[in-house]
Amino acid sequence: MNEKRLFDINSFKLSTSTLHKKNRRLAESLTSIGNGYMGMRGNFEETYSGDSHQGSYIAGVWFPDKTKVGWWKNGYPEYFGKVINSLNFIGIGVQVDGGEVDLHVDEVRDFHLELDMQTGILSRQFIVVKGKKETLIKVERFLSVERKEICAISYTATPLNYAGEVTFTPYLDGNVHNEDSNYEETFWSEIERSSQLFGGSLVTKTKANPFGTPQFTVAASMHVAPTKEAEIAATERGMFVANSVRMQANEGETVGIHKYISVTSSRDYAESEVLKGSQHILDQAVQAGYESLKQAHVEKWLERWEISDVEIVGDEEAQQGIRYNLFQLFSTYYGEDSRLNIGPKGFTGEKYGGATYWDTEAYAVPLYLSVAGKEVTRNLLLYRYNQLEGAYHNARQQGLQGALYPMVTFTGVECHNEWEITFEEIHRNAAMVYAIHNYVNYTGDKSYLEQFGIEVLVGVARFWADRVHFSKRKQMFMIHGVTGPNEYENNVNNNWYTNFMAKWCLSYTLKVIEDLRAAGAVKHLDTLQVTESEQVKWQSITEKMYLPYDEELDVFVQHDTFLDKDLMPVSELAPEQRPLNQKWSWDRILRSCFIKQADVLQGIYFFGEQFSLEQKRKNFAFYEPMTVHESSLSPCIHSVLAAELGMEEKAVEMYKRTARLDLDNYNNDTEDGLHITSMTGSWLAIVQGFAGMRTSNETLSFKPLLPKGWDKYSFKINYRDRLLKVTVSQTETRLELLRGEALTLNLMDESVLLEKEIVKSN
Amino acid sequence: MNEKRLFDINSFKLSTSTLHKKNRRLAESLTSIGNGYMGMRGNFEETYSGDSHQGSYIAGVWFPDKTKVGWWKNGYPEYFGKVINSLNFIGIGVQVDGGEVDLHVDEVRDFHLELDMQTGILSRQFIVVKGKKETLIKVERFLSVERKEICAISYTATPLNYAGEVTFTPYLDGNVHNEDSNYEETFWSEIERSSQLFGGSLVTKTKANPFGTPQFTVAASMHVAPTKEAEIAATERGMFVANSVRMQANEGETVGIHKYISVTSSRDYAESEVLKGSQHILDQAVQAGYESLKQAHVEKWLERWEISDVEIVGDEEAQQGIRYNLFQLFSTYYGEDSRLNIGPKGFTGEKYGGATYWDTEAYAVPLYLSVAGKEVTRNLLLYRYNQLEGAYHNARQQGLQGALYPMVTFTGVECHNEWEITFEEIHRNAAMVYAIHNYVNYTGDKSYLEQFGIEVLVGVARFWADRVHFSKRKQMFMIHGVTGPNEYENNVNNNWYTNFMAKWCLSYTLKVIEDLRAAGAVKHLDTLQVTESEQVKWQSITEKMYLPYDEELDVFVQHDTFLDKDLMPVSELAPEQRPLNQKWSWDRILRSCFIKQADVLQGIYFFGEQFSLEQKRKNFAFYEPMTVHESSLSPCIHSVLAAELGMEEKAVEMYKRTARLDLDNYNNDTEDGLHITSMTGSWLAIVQGFAGMRTSNETLSFKPLLPKGWDKYSFKINYRDRLLKVTVSQTETRLELLRGEALTLNLMDESVLLEKEIVKSN
Repeated sequence: MNEKRLFDINSFKLSTSTLHKKNRRLAESLTSIGNGYMGMRGNFEETYSGDSHQGSYIAGVWFPDKTKVGWWKNGYPEYFGKVINSLNFIGIGVQVDGGEVDLHVDEVRDFHLELDMQTGILSRQFIVVKGKKETLIKVERFLSVERKEICAISYTATPLNYAGEVTFTPYLDGNVHNEDSNYEETFWSEIERSSQLFGGSLVTKTKANPFGTPQFTVAASMHVAPTKEAEIAATERGMFVANSVRMQANEGETVGIHKYISVTSSRDYAESEVLKGSQHILDQAVQAGYESLKQAHVEKWLERWEISDVEIVGDEEAQQGIRYNLFQLFSTYYGEDSRLNIGPKGFTGEKYGGATYWDTEAYAVPLYLSVAGKEVTRNLLLYRYNQLEGAYHNARQQGLQGALYPMVTFTGVECHNEWEITFEEIHRNAAMVYAIHNYVNYTGDKSYLEQFGIEVLVGVARFWADRVHFSKRKQMFMIHGVTGPNEYENNVNNNWYTNFMAKWCLSYTLKVIEDLRAAGAVKHLDTLQVTESEQVKWQSITEKMYLPYDEELDVFVQHDTFLDKDLMPVSELAPEQRPLNQKWSWDRILRSCFIKQADVLQGIYFFGEQFSLEQKRKNFAFYEPMTVHESSLSPCIHSVLAAELGMEEKAVEMYKRTARLDLDNYNNDTEDGLHITSMTGSWLAIVQGFAGMRTSNETLSFKPLLPKGWDKYSFKINYRDRLLKVTVSQTETRLELLRGEALTLNLMDESVLLEKEIVKSN
Repeated sequence: MNEKRLFDINSFKLSTSTLHKKNRRLAESLTSIGNGYMGMRGNFEETYSGDSHQGSYIAGVWFPDKTKVGWWKNGYPEYFGKVINSLNFIGIGVQVDGGEVDLHVDEVRDFHLELDMQTGILSRQFIVVKGKKETLIKVERFLSVERKEICAISYTATPLNYAGEVTFTPYLDGNVHNEDSNYEETFWSEIERSSQLFGGSLVTKTKANPFGTPQFTVAASMHVAPTKEAEIAATERGMFVANSVRMQANEGETVGIHKYISVTSSRDYAESEVLKGSQHILDQAVQAGYESLKQAHVEKWLERWEISDVEIVGDEEAQQGIRYNLFQLFSTYYGEDSRLNIGPKGFTGEKYGGATYWDTEAYAVPLYLSVAGKEVTRNLLLYRYNQLEGAYHNARQQGLQGALYPMVTFTGVECHNEWEITFEEIHRNAAMVYAIHNYVNYTGDKSYLEQFGIEVLVGVARFWADRVHFSKRKQMFMIHGVTGPNEYENNVNNNWYTNFMAKWCLSYTLKVIEDLRAAGAVKHLDTLQVTESEQVKWQSITEKMYLPYDEELDVFVQHDTFLDKDLMPVSELAPEQRPLNQKWSWDRILRSCFIKQADVLQGIYFFGEQFSLEQKRKNFAFYEPMTVHESSLSPCIHSVLAAELGMEEKAVEMYKRTARLDLDNYNNDTEDGLHITSMTGSWLAIVQGFAGMRTSNETLSFKPLLPKGWDKYSFKINYRDRLLKVTVSQTETRLELLRGEALTLNLMDESVLLEKEIVKSN
């Protein structure tokens, strides 16, 4: 067993009978739950005095943390936008006979912790021993995916060998801080609070900031329902509201409370209505009752799995990995709110800040297209569409035309803080267009282009057209001063990937404009004032874009001077040198040939249909051996390509790195939070890699292989109003049409008509 | 007249009859005074309620200001070392009949402010009018260059049309802050204070820091001597000590005080002795008396000018410019303390932080070699020698061998905060070696190499040998990932200047080792364990160092891909685009062809004897037109080269930009402090440029020209225990040997023996 693994192998659960005091933070990250609207780490409800990272997060609620360095230059962002720790609303102090329950110091027996991924319910039970008095505690909580503002907790205690008093103290606590705050500042102040018997509420607001970004008001209301008659007292102090609920319990008698919490914010209500809104929603939830809320929540989760589950027979570790990744992705984002996106840590930590990376467009969109309704992806696209103004702002900050989507943002305005990323890692801009292309190609829904997409396309095209320069010496258009997907190099010239993507963006935009004109859909084009001469310039750039290529090696060259480096495979590095980002100075990393994640290969992956197998093989053989895969986004792309190239062993090795990255804490940093955005990788590796699913040219195709050691795997995908199930076993590949009309597709390079089921022997 | 010019043209003075309320900060910067040990901006002694930047600085007393950005990487420095504002010890509150004197609000007549550069005395006089009551104020202050710890102030008031009471309140005030502090933190706390009649003292200490850098204790003691009987009261509060001195004055009677201050620090005393030391020094100063202190101070200044003055006849602006630059340089550094160096703003402001740039070795050493005793330069070299340990630390931080001198430091350890500077602008390391070479070549003092220099040479050589890599493809040694002197490009590969200097460092070190071995001076070599195989590697690097060159253009190429840029001359830029560093984003600057300061040309300047006139001409013609000279270090190098190439107009244009940079506030930023380290530029332009002085191969030579509009110029230089005077007029060049033995030198490419005087017609 992997020694960094805390939880048992179980196909649909994370469970453990160990308290993991030394790895509390890691366990907390792994048992995070969320409902897209809010979420939290797997903190205990009751007091825990040991090392722990208490964290609850509300999607879209953030703070611009001030960040100063010695020298500031024009075009640098002013602040670093942070995901902020919001009030702790799950807390319940517990006093049993013998004192406060605190698992860090108490004797604990029969501990069991379980996250049920199928139903989205986190539960614990254990016996706490004080002196000779034993009390059985059972806890269950969920964040309703049916009523987004609602969290419900069931907390009970059973004196096993005594009769006595049990006191529960459910509370709301706004005295929280961000571990990732630059200057140990707190971000919240109290607006109002009230406490009464059976409940209370707390309204907090993010502090004023000098950057003109919005402040957020958050209201939390709680209702406490004891299971039997109790003596209740309400208490409060600054940013803190509590009830204390005292109950008498006979030996063997179970007493407890239900704690209902509703959380609302000024994102959805006028500031003066935020509290009222939370109280209203709370009232309804209380009226529905705990069991009914739970049932509705569970049903919703089952519906999600119904259309998205991936089954693996013969490898339970792999089975648990893929389900865990889907569970955490859906907990972070399920497309209900187009103002939200997929943050790198979701609701599981506050590191990195920002809530939107190009990961969404490059890695998450392909997954959501297949495992959820198309409106989910549409909302991801609309998120960017709605932030177009911010993207124009970012380009203007650099003195450039068009729209530059940010590397990290909450609003569209860049809020990351490194120049080598903010205005150099501009390939992200192409991913916005790629996602639109992907959506249209996958769903066949061309209306998005006309209504929204074209504005993004033109904004991005205008950016590229201004960002290139013409080299008189080489008589080619070039893009200098970029950081490619390989962030282990900065400020390089003519990154093949960036140049290729820029060229493609311009071509695609020209093509879409042509189509729109042909269809007479010129409204947006007229508003955007796309001129003939502008299009001529774009065309000229696509024709004369410099794409570095080495004849001798017959590979695309990562950037102008890459081949001058001291080239060597990763295998020549001593193991103690890795991971490079922990062991080496940035200077050494920048100058080395080692690649953090797919760069040239990312382009080849995106546009596989444009490259021959031979080209793929040569570039893979040249670059993969120099790749350290220190980005969690790296292994999946290599797994997909390796599968296509028939390198099954490499494909499986790369799959393993992506599927259990957090469960087995591969990068030693899961305690800071989960790698949410890279969780799509395992799905991509199975579906695009092992099953060889492609959708290019609006045609669905499969070319499956079965990894050694697996008996069978199956998955479901949504494709153009159909639900398909693909099952690959040692003997056959089975395609089933579970819903929708018959479809012509390619299976093993053969065109077939899928009406109900097709079975092909392997 | 230049509208940014505040002070009258006067050959040896800065004077004005305008209060310049709107440009108070600029005037304060310009009227800064210092004595190498401490210094201050030209703040008024009495209250001034308008915009002002109060600043007093003690050399070598600094603070590591915390600096955080979102992402930190291995090899980044931990803090940003700052010059810190120390206690205000010049302050004297003044009450006359009618209230507090405050030039910001009072009616003021006959204002006159004067900085006498010949004597280092700053004085003011004015009539302040309150109601109808007029009081004449006269103030004079100096920082003794004879007793470094002493500041003395004479402050008098004369009621012109009334009899009344005048109260002076001299004080010491530690409640100061740094304008450049990252997070508005203050850096000082009080250790002790005392006040008594006729004086007081204040001991402050820099706050503790988490970086392990030293804290500093500073004691200031003051003595107050009224000019006549007075009623005195002592007051104090936190970090503040004062006397209030009340005197009766008849109409027309002058009353006043002398305020003596001594400032000592834990740099020179055990912490428990700092206060005692300051009191002792104060006592001696008071005993000597104001006039005697002043006379000794003035004599020292006259001695400095005696061996360094530059006279220009026919252009008083130029005359004032060069003297102002020498005055401020000498005020900042005159070589008394090898623990000190020349900070970018000297004692005139706190911007930029750090106290040592490569400016010292590249720009200041040549001047100090000529205008001061050789021990001054020796101390500058020893400063680096003593920080060798810090340089080894810096290299280790990057995982590299050898010694990497810092870009900015107080201790040898890097304390600048940008990666593109700290571990990329490594050409600075070569400047350390160049300065040693320059010193040895100029003075003939080879003993320095054996005693100290060799350790620096070997440390730096080992760094270069590890920092290069061998490109298998090009079969050459390369240096990737650097920032050259042109800081408008970062992270370039094979910067010609850096590669050239690295190669030269290795060659020079090998040569010095050979000489030392030949002389049997192997003690240090043995300690350093310089091996044969190490030398073989160095030799191989010098032979195979890649130096980018373009055959078609016949120029050295600034770095690998420079010629791919969109090349165009600065003249094609619209004036409103400049200065680029204020008008353009950093992205645009980095990608443009525009050059901040000499880069390839810096190397050609340093090693002029290695390049033909034709090579110089071609490279100058290619690079200078693309140079925006936005570093204050740029124009002088171009002026010197232009003069050599006979481009007199360009040489004069460049001279003007350097000579009056601060006096005419060319860069619009002198209010932040003076550009101290670039003040050597005007001297270099006159002596190396117009007079064509060279010292290569241990031979002194001149090749003078007289700029149009000048009638005559002359300067003195110290060369190998001789004092020479060079006078260039329209008709002749006159060399005079004022002190020392006869010398053979080159004048207009002819070898001549200078015994007493040589005159050559032009």
